[in-house]
Amino acid sequence: MSKPYSPSRPLRLSDVERWDIETDVAVIGFGISGACAAIEAKNAGAQVTIFEVAAASGGSAALSGGDIYLGGNGGTPAQKAAGFEDQTEDFVKYLMMAGGPGADEARVRLYAENAVAHYHWLVEQGLPFKNSYLPGKWLEPTTDDTLIWSGSEAAWPFAQQAKPAPRGHTPQMKGWGAGKLIMETLTAKAHSLGIESHFSSRALALIADQDNRVHGLVVRIDGEPRMVRARKGVILCSGGFICNEEMVKRYVPASRVCPNPTSGGNDDGSGIRMGMSVGGDVLNMDQFFATRPFYPPESLVKGIFVNELGQRFINEDAYHGRVTHYMLRQPNDRCWLLVDSTMFERPVTYPDITVAAVGETWEEVEQELGIPAGELVHTVERFNRHAEQGEDPLWHKDAEYLQPLIEAPFAALAYGGKDYIGTSFTLGGLSTLPNGQVLTPEGEAIPGLYAAGRCACGIPRWGEGYSSGMSLGDSSFFGRQAGRQAAGA
Amino acid sequence: MSKPYSPSRPLRLSDVERWDIETDVAVIGFGISGACAAIEAKNAGAQVTIFEVAAASGGSAALSGGDIYLGGNGGTPAQKAAGFEDQTEDFVKYLMMAGGPGADEARVRLYAENAVAHYHWLVEQGLPFKNSYLPGKWLEPTTDDTLIWSGSEAAWPFAQQAKPAPRGHTPQMKGWGAGKLIMETLTAKAHSLGIESHFSSRALALIADQDNRVHGLVVRIDGEPRMVRARKGVILCSGGFICNEEMVKRYVPASRVCPNPTSGGNDDGSGIRMGMSVGGDVLNMDQFFATRPFYPPESLVKGIFVNELGQRFINEDAYHGRVTHYMLRQPNDRCWLLVDSTMFERPVTYPDITVAAVGETWEEVEQELGIPAGELVHTVERFNRHAEQGEDPLWHKDAEYLQPLIEAPFAALAYGGKDYIGTSFTLGGLSTLPNGQVLTPEGEAIPGLYAAGRCACGIPRWGEGYSSGMSLGDSSFFGRQAGRQAAGA
Repeated sequence: MSKPYSPSRPLRLSDVERWDIETDVAVIGFGISGACAAIEAKNAGAQVTIFEVAAASGGSAALSGGDIYLGGNGGTPAQKAAGFEDQTEDFVKYLMMAGGPGADEARVRLYAENAVAHYHWLVEQGLPFKNSYLPGKWLEPTTDDTLIWSGSEAAWPFAQQAKPAPRGHTPQMKGWGAGKLIMETLTAKAHSLGIESHFSSRALALIADQDNRVHGLVVRIDGEPRMVRARKGVILCSGGFICNEEMVKRYVPASRVCPNPTSGGNDDGSGIRMGMSVGGDVLNMDQFFATRPFYPPESLVKGIFVNELGQRFINEDAYHGRVTHYMLRQPNDRCWLLVDSTMFERPVTYPDITVAAVGETWEEVEQELGIPAGELVHTVERFNRHAEQGEDPLWHKDAEYLQPLIEAPFAALAYGGKDYIGTSFTLGGLSTLPNGQVLTPEGEAIPGLYAAGRCACGIPRWGEGYSSGMSLGDSSFFGRQAGRQAAGA
Repeated sequence: MSKPYSPSRPLRLSDVERWDIETDVAVIGFGISGACAAIEAKNAGAQVTIFEVAAASGGSAALSGGDIYLGGNGGTPAQKAAGFEDQTEDFVKYLMMAGGPGADEARVRLYAENAVAHYHWLVEQGLPFKNSYLPGKWLEPTTDDTLIWSGSEAAWPFAQQAKPAPRGHTPQMKGWGAGKLIMETLTAKAHSLGIESHFSSRALALIADQDNRVHGLVVRIDGEPRMVRARKGVILCSGGFICNEEMVKRYVPASRVCPNPTSGGNDDGSGIRMGMSVGGDVLNMDQFFATRPFYPPESLVKGIFVNELGQRFINEDAYHGRVTHYMLRQPNDRCWLLVDSTMFERPVTYPDITVAAVGETWEEVEQELGIPAGELVHTVERFNRHAEQGEDPLWHKDAEYLQPLIEAPFAALAYGGKDYIGTSFTLGGLSTLPNGQVLTPEGEAIPGLYAAGRCACGIPRWGEGYSSGMSLGDSSFFGRQAGRQAAGA
C-alpha cells in the first residue's frame, strides 16, 4: 500500500495480503462501552479482542464521577430504599423529553424497561453500591452514598410531565471520581474472562469489501500496521470527538465557548469517521454537553440568573448543564447569578468566581453591571414578591428553592463566557439500532459493524436535556447490546 | 444486480456491464445550481448532461421570490445607483456573522470578492435587472424594482459590526415569484448552448470504484436503469432534504414546528445521501431556514414581540427568519406581536392571523393572554419610555422603528407554533471546497464528485443568520465553480 491508512477510507478486503490477528469480535476502545461490549460478547461464546490506543483501559469513563442513570420498573434497590417509586413510563417520559426533538423512542424504551436488570448486571460484574440516598443538589457524591438527583427530574417542565425520582447511581467510594472504580472493576472482570487486549494500539482503518461489509480492521501495534480479521464483527467503542479540534470546528463549533474537554484525552472521533467511511450515517453532530456548574453549594440554587437585559431566562433548579445551555443563548453570552447574603457561598468547582458586582441595594448592583436602569430591580422585586408566596409564575422554579433576595449585601456572580471556563463533550455520533448495528442513511444495517458509547448517537443526544449519568448508563447498557449482537452474528 | 439501487450504496464500477450514456460532466438536478454548473462546464469545453427528476427544469428556485444576495466591491450597479457604497470587507463581516459559529471564511471571501462579477455574469445569461431601489421592509418586491433590504443588515448586532447595505437583488418582473423568470432564462441559455437534458429521470445511485472514485451514476429513464459514464465527474445539484420526512425527523427534527416545506417538491436529500455513500462528509444537518413572516406591512415592525412571560426576546427589525428562530426558543413556543392602533394592519402573508387579545389598556391584553400580572405592562411601559427618547437599551432596535405603543385599542397577534403554520427548508449538506469538490471527514477531495446548492453546506448554513437571497446567490455562484472545476478535471 502506498497510500497511508485513513479512518475515512476502508482498506479493501481484496488488498489484504495476510491476517496478523484473527478473532471473532474486535472491540475498538477499552472505556466503559468497550469493556461492557467485550464482556457480553465473551459471555455469549465469542473470542474477543480489544484494541485500546492508550496504555491502559479506562477511557473517559475512568475520569468521570461514576454516576449511572438508572430507574423505572418500580425502582432500583436504592430508589426503593429511599421511598421513591419509579414507574417505567415516568422514566420513559423523562428520557424522551431529555432526548429533545430527535429522541429515539425504541432506544429509550429498551433502556427504561431494562435499567433495573442492568443495575443487577453491574453488581454481578463486581460494582459495589451502598444503595443509600443523598438528598440535595450535587454534581456527584463526595460521600460513599449511591443515589442523587442528577438531572432536571424535579424541575419544570420535566416534573409536570413525568413523576420525578432521583436516578443518579454512583458506586460506593468516598470522594469524587468513582468512574475510576467502575473501570478498574470492569477491566478486572474482562481480564478474568480471558478477553485479549492490546494497549497502545491505534485503529487506523476498517477493512471492508467493496459492498462495505466489514471484515476487520488495521491496527498499529509496535509501530507496525497489523491486519486484524474479525469474523463476527467490529464494535466501535472509541468515544466521541471533543479532543479533535478540526471535527469540533466543523460539527459542533458552538461548544468552543466551553473549551475544557470532558475526556480522557482520546475522544478523537476516529471511530465515528471509520463508521462513516463504510456508509454509516451520523446524527446530532451539533449537540454537546456543556457546563459551567454553579452548585454545590445548594444555597446558590436559590439565586436567580439574569442576562445583560436584566431578564431571568431559566428556572435555576434545572440541571446545571441545562442551565448552561440557556446561558449560551443570552445576548453576548453574558449572565450573572444574583444572590443575597444568606445564599452566598463560593461555588465548589470554581471558588475564585468573579464577583461582578456587590451592593447594599439592587439598584447599586444593577448600575455596576451596566444593566438598563430599572430592569434588574424590576426582575428582583417581582421575583421576591412571588417567592414570598412560594410561587414563580415566570419560570416555575420549585418552591423548595424560592426565597426572596432581601438580605443585603447583594452580589452578582459572573457566569458568562468571558468569565467562566466551561467544559463540554460531544453527543453526536453514528446512527445505530438499539442492538448496536450501524445504519446507513437508508436505515440499512452495515454487515459486521457495531457502535456504542459516544461513538454512537445514544440516549444522551441533546445538550439541553442531558443529565449526569446518562452517558455511562447508555455506554454500558448499549455496549452490552452491541457485544451480544456481534457475538451472535 | 439482484439488489435494488440505493442512493446510500454506490454501484461498483466492476459491476457495470455497459454504458448506456456517456458524457464528460453529469449534473444531477436542473434547478439553479444545476443550471449554472452546466452552463459553466459547457462554456469550459465539456460535454454536459443534466438529469432532472421532474418533468421540467426549475427546482425550488423556480418557486422562489428570485432574490439574489449580492454586494461588496464598492457596490453593485443597483447599490451604487441608490447611493449605497458596499465594501467587500463589510460584506465579508456580515456573511461571517450570518454563517454562525461554523461560518466558512474561504467560501465567504470567494463569494464576497466575486459577487459583483457574478451579477454581471447573470446579466450576460439574460437576466434583466432594473437596478432601482425599493426602501422599506419586504419579503420580496411586488414592484419590478431590484434592490431591497433582504436580511438583518441594518439591525443589531449586524449593523454595529458591518456597515449596512441592502443586498437583495431581484430580476425585473412585476409581482412575486421572480424565481420563475430566473429559471426560464437559465434554462433557455442552457438549451441554447447545446446542453443535453433528461427530464423525469431519477438518479438512483453513484457508480464508483472500490476506492470511492466516482465514474458516473445510475439513472432511471423510462422506467429502466441506465448506466451513465461521466468522464470528468458528477455534480450533485439535487437540492436539500426538507421533503424527506425520514431525513427531517432524523437530522433536523426541530424544523417540524414550521411544517410547510419551501420547496419545489423534490428536495428529497438523495444527492446528499449519494455523496455520503462514497465517504462524503455532511455539515450543519441540524440547521434550517424557518419563517413565520410578520412583515410587510412595515408598520408591524414597530410592534414588539413578547413571550408568555411578558418578556421581549429580539429586536423586531431583524430579518423575519431570524426573528422566527428566536420565537422557536421561547417557552412552549408561545409569543405575540403587540401593536397599537396606529401600527395594526393585517400581515400580507397571513391576513387571517389570530388576534389573541384586544384591549383598551395593556392590563387587559396582559390578562387576556394569561401573562403573569404586571409583566407585560412593565415591558410595554419600559419600551414606551425608551422609545420616546428614540432608544431601545434592551434589544437595540433601530430608531426608525421605535414608536411608543400608546394609541388604544391595543392588540396581540399570535405567532406561536399552535397559531401560525411556518415554513422551512434545510441548510445542511455535503462538505465541499469552494470549488465544489466533495470532502471526506479527513478533508480529502473525493475524485469525480462535486456538489452545489442545498446539496452542499454553503454560505447559508445557520438559521439565525439566513437572509433572503443567500440560497439563490450561493447556489448560482457555487454551481458555477463546481461546473468549471469538473470541466477542468
